[in-house]
Amino acid sequence: MNGAESLIRTACAAGLEICFANPGTTELPLVAALDQEPGIRAVLGLFEGVCTGAADGYARMADRPALTLLHLGPGFANGIANLHNARRARSPVVNLIGDHATWHLPHDAPLSSDIVSLASPVSAWVRTTRTSKELASDFAEAISAAWRPPGQVATLIAPADCQWDPADGPARPRPREAFPRPDFANVEATARRLRQSATPALLLGHGALREAGLRAAARIAAATGASLLCEVFPTRIERGAGRPRLEKLPYFPEQAQQRLAGCDVLVLAGAREPVSFFGYPGVASRLAPDGAGTVLATPDEDAAAALEALADALGAPARAPAAAELPRPAMPGGALTPAALGAILARLQPEGAIVVDEGATSGLAYFSAAESAPPHSYLALTGGAIGQGMPCATGAALACPQRKVISLQADGSGFYTLQALWTQAREQLDVVTLICANRSYRILQLELARAGIAEPGAKARALTDLSHPTPDWTALARGFGVPATRAQTAEELHHALSAALAAPGPCLIEAIL
Amino acid sequence: MNGAESLIRTACAAGLEICFANPGTTELPLVAALDQEPGIRAVLGLFEGVCTGAADGYARMADRPALTLLHLGPGFANGIANLHNARRARSPVVNLIGDHATWHLPHDAPLSSDIVSLASPVSAWVRTTRTSKELASDFAEAISAAWRPPGQVATLIAPADCQWDPADGPARPRPREAFPRPDFANVEATARRLRQSATPALLLGHGALREAGLRAAARIAAATGASLLCEVFPTRIERGAGRPRLEKLPYFPEQAQQRLAGCDVLVLAGAREPVSFFGYPGVASRLAPDGAGTVLATPDEDAAAALEALADALGAPARAPAAAELPRPAMPGGALTPAALGAILARLQPEGAIVVDEGATSGLAYFSAAESAPPHSYLALTGGAIGQGMPCATGAALACPQRKVISLQADGSGFYTLQALWTQAREQLDVVTLICANRSYRILQLELARAGIAEPGAKARALTDLSHPTPDWTALARGFGVPATRAQTAEELHHALSAALAAPGPCLIEAIL
Repeated sequence: MNGAESLIRTACAAGLEICFANPGTTELPLVAALDQEPGIRAVLGLFEGVCTGAADGYARMADRPALTLLHLGPGFANGIANLHNARRARSPVVNLIGDHATWHLPHDAPLSSDIVSLASPVSAWVRTTRTSKELASDFAEAISAAWRPPGQVATLIAPADCQWDPADGPARPRPREAFPRPDFANVEATARRLRQSATPALLLGHGALREAGLRAAARIAAATGASLLCEVFPTRIERGAGRPRLEKLPYFPEQAQQRLAGCDVLVLAGAREPVSFFGYPGVASRLAPDGAGTVLATPDEDAAAALEALADALGAPARAPAAAELPRPAMPGGALTPAALGAILARLQPEGAIVVDEGATSGLAYFSAAESAPPHSYLALTGGAIGQGMPCATGAALACPQRKVISLQADGSGFYTLQALWTQAREQLDVVTLICANRSYRILQLELARAGIAEPGAKARALTDLSHPTPDWTALARGFGVPATRAQTAEELHHALSAALAAPGPCLIEAIL
Repeated sequence: MNGAESLIRTACAAGLEICFANPGTTELPLVAALDQEPGIRAVLGLFEGVCTGAADGYARMADRPALTLLHLGPGFANGIANLHNARRARSPVVNLIGDHATWHLPHDAPLSSDIVSLASPVSAWVRTTRTSKELASDFAEAISAAWRPPGQVATLIAPADCQWDPADGPARPRPREAFPRPDFANVEATARRLRQSATPALLLGHGALREAGLRAAARIAAATGASLLCEVFPTRIERGAGRPRLEKLPYFPEQAQQRLAGCDVLVLAGAREPVSFFGYPGVASRLAPDGAGTVLATPDEDAAAALEALADALGAPARAPAAAELPRPAMPGGALTPAALGAILARLQPEGAIVVDEGATSGLAYFSAAESAPPHSYLALTGGAIGQGMPCATGAALACPQRKVISLQADGSGFYTLQALWTQAREQLDVVTLICANRSYRILQLELARAGIAEPGAKARALTDLSHPTPDWTALARGFGVPATRAQTAEELHHALSAALAAPGPCLIEAIL
């Protein structure tokens, strides 16, 4: 047994299911070893950002570590942006990067680079294996690091000779570390603050946004009248009809500050103290009033358990009264606006859908419209590194093959990693991609206006406009093997989306906004 | 004047012509400043790897620094792979990266990351500006660093407040450092070794591959009988009819070692001691016989001047006899093989063409076929980070608008940065993209066979095969606004390529191999 075989057997024993791969010469022993292990599926991405974004999406939906296989420093670098999102999502992801043989590295061959320096900004754990006999145990440790609750990115660099030289056998997987118990003194202190608060709110993130956390948050709201808010870019929310309703904090800092201005207590459960996405001249970075924020559970703690403890401490009812049922949005007609698009999607999405929202400005209206939709999972762009949506949808579909995945995708961001469509076609994944084609970086146009540039010059216009020429998403999708249609009116989108949701397999709709 | 305006004026005064940009919110003051400076053209890439690869191609052909404008850590990370190639090419590239305002950074907003750690592996110079008043002088220093002979990558991180806060004015551009003069003692020693050598060879790289260096190398060959070799992946060669002929060192180490086995002296001029691209079990990393290599000029020295000095020291004729004219390749017929493709391209390419070769295994036959082509420039994948070809061709076309650019592109590598086609369409660049569609990572299939895996398993096949589904490059090109055709036989390719070369503007031919 060589090092690569010992590693892949370790991966299988640890329960890893899928390897999101774009391998090269320095990973071929691992590729060969995969062929000897039926327990792990190999999924090819045509670009590494597809692999890392899919790993993130898989991890968010499967609640278990995802594995990537990437080629040296430059191959890994292509995956960094989506690992940045995975890091912010606290997704458990193990990156396995082949490197030159240890004895070849000193020769500084063309593909050599400082992989540790590239990996460190997105990885909570990085190691370079030194010998083939240590590869399996290093990998077991990488899985354990990735799996540390709630999850993090771990990166193992495997020199080629450590893959092909002999090894002793697989390593024993380590048991997952337990989530630390909530701090009950903190729970009591938070309960006291809430009891004295006139205008309390809860800001929920990460683990607080799953069903148990939301139920507990709803109990607290019933007992205290607290508003339930969630982060602007949540990792995953379980939402829709019958589930507690949340208000998403506004994106722009002035609006978020206005929303929070009246809160005398803001309980942070799985969310950090809210800060502006960007800094602006004369605008404070912190969004909550001074002294209002109080940490019940950080994103790295068990926020659902802390919320339950808080609900109990408050003597909240065992179950919050169900929210009144909302009617699904009316069918809009005529012009295809972002509001119409959001209403149509919320109106048609099936029960159990997974909605991956990288719709940017075009997706804003969808979030509130979907309150009335059947129960579904909602995944957002946690780290702001665009090009996450289609890869994330790919991974989510692999994690949950029985569920419909809807990839709500801004066009400008979609161009970053459109190669994900090919993987969706190859694996015949049940993903409907809905391109919001406004043919611009609309958010930048808004930011120019916010900066007082009422009439941008020719270069500012050129750098924020995506027409001239106008890309054709239906051709791009067909080029990667995904059937595609275009919708120019609300009626056309309703028709196309109904048909897409009724059929299995991938398809793409270009909605012209 | 704010910091951004002081920087852009400095850029213009230093002679920077084009900004290869994919900006975001943290770069908007620089975007606004570009609009006030008519001397700098702004070219949008739909993905940062397009911007950095285009900067590399521009720098190789314009022989002056290229400028990129990128968005924080994740945006920069998307450009790392092609900066790795630029670093290996010794291309002068200045990266300008916006970051959060200095006072916003401590809040660890979603897009915050350690940009210095990401930038260092590909940058010879990295700095983060601290105040708006230092931004222009820091930028002048960045240009100076990039422009240090022969060229390198310099990265300046510009926090947003350093862009929008007041500045005193532009900084004075610094004069370019001179290339160090060749070491004449070394030239004399090399001449002595060559005079005593029975089987000498010259290995040329970087500056030695331009016209002056090649003429001097040909004089040395005439005086000593030395073979003229070049690196496997040269930055830029001036080649074709009437220019000295070179033999490219083979890619695989066994063949390269065999080629060099008989050399008792290998003079390195602008090239490093040759090493295998990858390490293989039982194969030495170094390719030349022990003791044969002797350094005349490193890639960072003036190899052309050193070769001229060496030719003079050897008493070589002032001008080498012209090589016998070669007939252009005969028109192949029938099946479209890599050999037929190479012959057809070499037969049709016009005088002054710039050929960007990321053809991988499919491009091998072209190089020798093109010896007889009219004078042209040849650019290769210097760092092995795939996805360089189409961006590099884009930048080369912007540097040399009067010359036809031919982008000889492997399909697997092409998928990495196909967004470059949109920039070619928007700027109406004179680029013919020739996709070598073998629908596989052929090099990996060869490597599997070399590793003794005669019959790869299902996963190894799936991870190296690009059919199922078969991508349609003509649809992808049209999706990005580039007209496209397909060729399935030698005759069809001859016809399509003739037409493409006769028409201005971008087009793409998918050659089915």
